[in-house]
Amino acid sequence: MKIVVTGFEPFGGESINPAQEAVKAIRDEINGAQIVKCYVPVVFYKAIDTVYDVMKKEQPDAVLLIGQAGGRFEITPERVAINVDDARIPDNEGQQPVDKKIVEDGPDAYFSTLPIKAMVEKIKEAGVPSSVSNTAGTYVCNHLMYGILDKIAKEFPDTIGGFMHVPYLHVQVKNRAGVPSLSEEDVIKGIEAAIGAIAQSLK
Amino acid sequence: MKIVVTGFEPFGGESINPAQEAVKAIRDEINGAQIVKCYVPVVFYKAIDTVYDVMKKEQPDAVLLIGQAGGRFEITPERVAINVDDARIPDNEGQQPVDKKIVEDGPDAYFSTLPIKAMVEKIKEAGVPSSVSNTAGTYVCNHLMYGILDKIAKEFPDTIGGFMHVPYLHVQVKNRAGVPSLSEEDVIKGIEAAIGAIAQSLK
Amino acid sequence: MKIVVTGFEPFGGESINPAQEAVKAIRDEINGAQIVKCYVPVVFYKAIDTVYDVMKKEQPDAVLLIGQAGGRFEITPERVAINVDDARIPDNEGQQPVDKKIVEDGPDAYFSTLPIKAMVEKIKEAGVPSSVSNTAGTYVCNHLMYGILDKIAKEFPDTIGGFMHVPYLHVQVKNRAGVPSLSEEDVIKGIEAAIGAIAQSLK
Amino acid sequence: MKIVVTGFEPFGGESINPAQEAVKAIRDEINGAQIVKCYVPVVFYKAIDTVYDVMKKEQPDAVLLIGQAGGRFEITPERVAINVDDARIPDNEGQQPVDKKIVEDGPDAYFSTLPIKAMVEKIKEAGVPSSVSNTAGTYVCNHLMYGILDKIAKEFPDTIGGFMHVPYLHVQVKNRAGVPSLSEEDVIKGIEAAIGAIAQSLK
Repeated sequence: MKIVVTGFEPFGGESINPAQEAVKAIRDEINGAQIVKCYVPVVFYKAIDTVYDVMKKEQPDAVLLIGQAGGRFEITPERVAINVDDARIPDNEGQQPVDKKIVEDGPDAYFSTLPIKAMVEKIKEAGVPSSVSNTAGTYVCNHLMYGILDKIAKEFPDTIGGFMHVPYLHVQVKNRAGVPSLSEEDVIKGIEAAIGAIAQSLK
Repeated sequence: MKIVVTGFEPFGGESINPAQEAVKAIRDEINGAQIVKCYVPVVFYKAIDTVYDVMKKEQPDAVLLIGQAGGRFEITPERVAINVDDARIPDNEGQQPVDKKIVEDGPDAYFSTLPIKAMVEKIKEAGVPSSVSNTAGTYVCNHLMYGILDKIAKEFPDTIGGFMHVPYLHVQVKNRAGVPSLSEEDVIKGIEAAIGAIAQSLK
Repeated sequence: MKIVVTGFEPFGGESINPAQEAVKAIRDEINGAQIVKCYVPVVFYKAIDTVYDVMKKEQPDAVLLIGQAGGRFEITPERVAINVDDARIPDNEGQQPVDKKIVEDGPDAYFSTLPIKAMVEKIKEAGVPSSVSNTAGTYVCNHLMYGILDKIAKEFPDTIGGFMHVPYLHVQVKNRAGVPSLSEEDVIKGIEAAIGAIAQSLK
Repeated sequence: MKIVVTGFEPFGGESINPAQEAVKAIRDEINGAQIVKCYVPVVFYKAIDTVYDVMKKEQPDAVLLIGQAGGRFEITPERVAINVDDARIPDNEGQQPVDKKIVEDGPDAYFSTLPIKAMVEKIKEAGVPSSVSNTAGTYVCNHLMYGILDKIAKEFPDTIGGFMHVPYLHVQVKNRAGVPSLSEEDVIKGIEAAIGAIAQSLK
C-alpha cells in the first residue's frame, strides 16, 4: 500500500509552510502504508504537474494533498474542489488568474474520494481539533485538488485522492496578533491520524 | 423581463427569516424587471418543488434564491452549489440527511449562472458590504440552489439562476452576544442592488 | 441641560473616522438636552486638552466621548478607563508611548459615570446592536476617557462622563475583506439613542 | 523563592477546567522557585478566601492565578482587574451578582504586579502563542484577581500577583464547532514559561 503525501512550499510572504514542515516530519510508514513525500510549488499548473509526475512514477493507492489555511484553527479535510481559479494574490511566479477554468472542458467540481468523515474522527481521536470544510477556496490549493482529482478521474481508476488544510503553526504567528495556530506536534499528529484513516479505508 | 426572487421561511428556532422579511419589502419592479416573490419552506425537496412550480408558471428570465447565513456580516452571492445534503440540524419537517446526493445522477456541482461579481459591485456601490462566497454549506440553502440549477440546466435553457446569503438582521441578535448583523434597510438595499445587476446583465 | 459629544479625527491611515462623521450628523437637541459637538485630534494629551477646554467653557451636565473600534460589530459603551498608554501604532503626531501612566499620581482606573446599561438598552430599542465593553484598549481612546474622567473627578463634581466605541462604517470596509461594519444611519441612530438615555438619567 | 499557582475547578457546564488540569501537571520547581499548587472553587468570595488562606500560610513571593477564557486562542496574562462583579451566568453556588462592587471601599481597579510583558515574551519563546489582555471580564476570574490584588495591597507588601487566562484544551472542543483551542502540552509549556519569567523577576 502506497500513499503520496504532498506539502506546499512557502507562499504569500511566509518563510515556512506548515504543510511542508509537517510532511517532512511524518513517519515513512503509517498503518501499513508506505508514505511517499512530495513538495509542491505554489504555482498554478506547475503544482498539478509536480504531483502528476510523482503519481505516474509511484502509482499510489491514495494521494493526500496538504496545504495551509491561515485563519482556521482546525485541521480540515476538504469535501470538494471547483473548476475555477480566482486569485487575490499572485502565485510564486506572478500569475494571478481571475475566474478562469482550471480544466477547460472539465466538470464544475469533483468531490474528494478520500474518507473525509473518518479522517476527521481519527484526527479528533488523536486529540487534535478537526472538521470537514466545504470550500478549499479558489487559489492554488483548490487548483491542485481539482487538477489531481481530474487526473484521477481520467487516468488512475484505482487511486483515491483529496486535499486537507492545516492551520498556521505557532511559530508563524509569533509577531502577528489575532490569528489562531496549532503546535507542529499537533499538526504532525493530525496528519498521521488522517493518513491512518486513509490506509484503513484501503484495506 | 421577469425575475423570481425567493426567501426562506424561518428555521432553526428563529421567529423570523431576514431573507423572507426583506423579500417582502423589496420593490415590485427593479431596473426594468418585474419581480415575482416566492416564499419557500425550509424542507429538503419541498423547497425545490415550491420554486420549480413558480418557474414553470412564470417562465422567468432569472431566479434569485435568498437565504440567511448567521455569522456572516456581508451579503454574499454564492459561486457554486454541490450535490450533497449533510445536515447538522433537522429541517422544518424533521429530515436530517447525512452525505446524501441531492440528484442521484447529477454532476458534483453547478456554478451559479448569475453575474455574481457584478452583483457584489452593485451591492457595495449601494453602500452595503458584500463579497463572493465559495460555499453555500450543505443544508437546505445549498440544496435549493443545486436543485434549481439542475432544473435550469435541464428545462430552462434561457433562464439564469443562483443563490445569495444575507446576514442576521439586528432584530434577530438583540438577545444574543457576539453575532454580527445588518439593518433591514441595508439588506433590502443590498438585495435590490443585486437584482439591479441581474437585470442589467439580461439587457 | 447640556451634553458635550466628541468624535475623533481620522487615524491609522483611515480617510474618515465614523465617530466624527456620525457626530456631525446627530441632532442639535436630543431628549431636552442641547448637544455641543467637538472634534478631537488622535494625539496623546492634545485629545484631553481639546475636550477639557470645551468643558471649561461649556460647563456641561454630561460628556460623551466617541471613538472607532475596528473589528467590533456593536456600539459599545465602555465600562472603565485604565491609567496606561500602550500604543501599537504612533498617534497622529508620531508619539507611541509604551506602558506609560496617563496621570502620574492617578488611580489605576476610573469607571464611566454614564448610565452604560441604560444606554445599551436604548440603543437596542432603536434597532441597533449594542453591548457593554470592559476594555477601551490602551491607545488614545482609553487615554482620552481616563483623562476626562480624571478632570471630572477633580474639577467637575456635577458632570457625568464616559466613552463609547462605534464599529467601522460600511464605506470604510469597501475594499477590505473580513471586517464587520454598520451603516452610518445605524451609527447615528445608536448615538442619538445613547444620548437620549444620558439625558433621561439627568432629569 | 515560593510561587503560589492556582487553577479553577470546572464551571459553566464544562467537565474539566484546563487551568486546573494544567496546574496539576506543571513541575514542582521552576527556575529556582518552589511551586505551591492550589485549586479554587468558581464561587464569588470563596475563591478569594481559598487563595487568601494559602497565602497566609505560605507567605509566597508571587501568586499566579490561572483561569479559562473560552474563545481565546492565546495564553493571555491580564493587565488589570476592576472592582465589579457582573455575571452572565451563575457561579457554582448559584450566585449571579450584577454590577456589584467586589470590595465596598476599594479602588476602581488594580494593575497586575506580575511582569506581564516578560511573561508574554517567555511564553512565545517556548513556542506557544501569547499576548497581554486588557480585560479579565466581570465574572469570577476578574473577581479573584481583584480580590487577591486587594489583599496584596493591604497585607502582603513583598508579594507580587496577577492573573493569566488560558484557552480551551483540544479535548474540550471535540464536539463543539467553531471554537479555538490549544493542546494540553502547549498550555503546560506556556504556564511553566510564564512562571519562569516571574521567578526571573524576583531574583
